[in-house]
Amino acid sequence: MRAPVFGLIDHIGVAVFDLDAALELYEGSFGMPVAHRETVTEQGVEAVLLDVGATHVELLRPLAGETAVGRFLAKRGPGLHHVAYRVDDIAATLAELREGGIDLIDAEPRTGIRRSRVAFLHPRSTGGVLTEIVEPDRGVH
Amino acid sequence: MRAPVFGLIDHIGVAVFDLDAALELYEGSFGMPVAHRETVTEQGVEAVLLDVGATHVELLRPLAGETAVGRFLAKRGPGLHHVAYRVDDIAATLAELREGGIDLIDAEPRTGIRRSRVAFLHPRSTGGVLTEIVEPDRGVH
Repeated sequence: MRAPVFGLIDHIGVAVFDLDAALELYEGSFGMPVAHRETVTEQGVEAVLLDVGATHVELLRPLAGETAVGRFLAKRGPGLHHVAYRVDDIAATLAELREGGIDLIDAEPRTGIRRSRVAFLHPRSTGGVLTEIVEPDRGVH
Repeated sequence: MRAPVFGLIDHIGVAVFDLDAALELYEGSFGMPVAHRETVTEQGVEAVLLDVGATHVELLRPLAGETAVGRFLAKRGPGLHHVAYRVDDIAATLAELREGGIDLIDAEPRTGIRRSRVAFLHPRSTGGVLTEIVEPDRGVH
């Protein structure tokens, strides 16, 4: 047993074909307030972040078929895409994971939604679960 | 917009072939303390609940191939299986969801891990995401 590496589940990422239908469910039926909406061109998605307590749901609509989320949808259909854990210091956490033998998709943090810093771990190291770590921008939770 | 129906993400459920290997990752590499371990015969799984802040990861190993998680693994391989949201009053939440037109797998709450009360919503109503709601037993979070 080592000290905890992650703070808590920050969000789940959900791949969708139809953002309006997904918002009708998450905002309309589930009452989750929309916290943020953003097109993240480098990740090839239009993303909507909704609050559920201190955690979030991130809806992801691909901008094109030949994107990571587009290929996921073509193969698996809509559904759970990834889980993200919140960390205080993403650079320190990445170094700790790398030393622990975890394969990283992102060796360095990159900019995520809402000015967060994010990195993805490789599913081959994480039992098939696409796992993200996220350090929120100061000023948002 | 309606009032929030869920409190926060309670846990993600992760389907695994090998619990020991998964524990090496989640407990060993990620430093998540094991909160509970239980065989839930009626769901056909051996389950391990780990803490990550106020949220959890639930590892699920099927007891046989012909179980829900066994079929999931055969079709998709190991990975994200479901998301669960925490609620204060599961009976009231189920009634609210039913009135909102959400299809339920469990019309009535049943007993989940660690004496919680749980119910699953049908993925056809939830954009392909297998969604659980959970009312923890008093005395645990």
